[in-house]
Amino acid sequence: MSAELLSRIRVVLSRTTHPGNIGAAARAMKTMGISSLYLVSPKKPIDAEAEARASGAVDVLHGARVCASLTEALQGTVYALAVSARRRELAYVSAAAHSAAQALVAAAQAGEVALVFGTEMSGLTNEEILQCSAAAHIPAEPGYSSLNLAAAVQVLAYEARVAALAGQSLPVAEAAPARHEDVENLYIHLEQSLLASGFLDPANPKRLMPRLRRLFGRARLEQEEVNILRGMLNSFDKNT
Amino acid sequence: MSAELLSRIRVVLSRTTHPGNIGAAARAMKTMGISSLYLVSPKKPIDAEAEARASGAVDVLHGARVCASLTEALQGTVYALAVSARRRELAYVSAAAHSAAQALVAAAQAGEVALVFGTEMSGLTNEEILQCSAAAHIPAEPGYSSLNLAAAVQVLAYEARVAALAGQSLPVAEAAPARHEDVENLYIHLEQSLLASGFLDPANPKRLMPRLRRLFGRARLEQEEVNILRGMLNSFDKNT
Repeated sequence: MSAELLSRIRVVLSRTTHPGNIGAAARAMKTMGISSLYLVSPKKPIDAEAEARASGAVDVLHGARVCASLTEALQGTVYALAVSARRRELAYVSAAAHSAAQALVAAAQAGEVALVFGTEMSGLTNEEILQCSAAAHIPAEPGYSSLNLAAAVQVLAYEARVAALAGQSLPVAEAAPARHEDVENLYIHLEQSLLASGFLDPANPKRLMPRLRRLFGRARLEQEEVNILRGMLNSFDKNT
Repeated sequence: MSAELLSRIRVVLSRTTHPGNIGAAARAMKTMGISSLYLVSPKKPIDAEAEARASGAVDVLHGARVCASLTEALQGTVYALAVSARRRELAYVSAAAHSAAQALVAAAQAGEVALVFGTEMSGLTNEEILQCSAAAHIPAEPGYSSLNLAAAVQVLAYEARVAALAGQSLPVAEAAPARHEDVENLYIHLEQSLLASGFLDPANPKRLMPRLRRLFGRARLEQEEVNILRGMLNSFDKNT
């Protein structure tokens, strides 16, 4: 059961600068029983340094799927955890790695899930975080909280493995969670409806869409709820 | 309090092959608030690669103390945790990282403690492990349990930080624990006494000393107990 849960976890690395870090991340994943790697627009292709740092995990490295966008990398997932060192004005309340990994593994009982990491220098953008379901951080020294990317992957993969091995008693999700792409389509629909209704002023959007993403992301929408919300929007659209 | 506990933890890297891993280990330590680094007979000196991988932790890297032996690196410690992936016939029962780190931090209430890591290819030797107080492993995939050295340092340093931050409720050691060098001197004395008594046959030692190390290491001798044992040995020595 724990191996099956771990097989549902994908690691998504967004806009990675150094191929060596991708190789080291592949090794970190494999030691913890995670083998599904997604790369969003890596700055440089996989090279000899990446292979050297991957060591015995070159299979994970060469099995990586390269995606053009985070949305593409999160296709099919029902839960995505944004890993970030920074706190942000409008982002989710960030959970510590241990409890965040427990939530990730609990969500994996219902389908594919993702651990999402940003670029080495600046991490994930607000826009990337708001495509995820929740945020996590590794408790670090305030004066020097900059973990190496692969080291951060190692800690989260380790905590995911610890959670999966203890996973017998995890609560099962009550209803089918919405897939990432269906939630993204809801946001597109919502934005169009609000533009048509005049509530969203394109000249002065006032962070309306990020706020709505934060609200619905935190709620972790079920598939049926997405259908209901889309139906509601359709009903409004007819009157505008 | 947690910062003081973390300041009592030293990371000891024995016979490290790649200076880059030493730099990455320094970075991993600093992100978790640990800054005391000891290097036992590193194969190569600190170089530009080590500095690059240390990133903002070059102060930890350049503050490293180079030692000729593990005994020298453990001087003054009251507890040393051997981190190893392998199980061994005559080694300690190995605890998982999470609970092992709690024991390390609890021991730090009484004095300096160490996290001890072996060489990249083969880890710690049995002899090195038996100079430590206890052994720990990171729960890893059975088919590929080979964490990068700095990644292993990151996981243990992370668990030590988690334990230190939660440290208010840790049990306080009841009596003053023995210092590493005093325990080592006890073993030297014990061996000499057993040679003199004829119980230890130098032509056929039968792993007697490793077994005694394992016994007393597991018991985590107090300072007063070492004094008593030395006194006992002195009394035997007079009769042989």
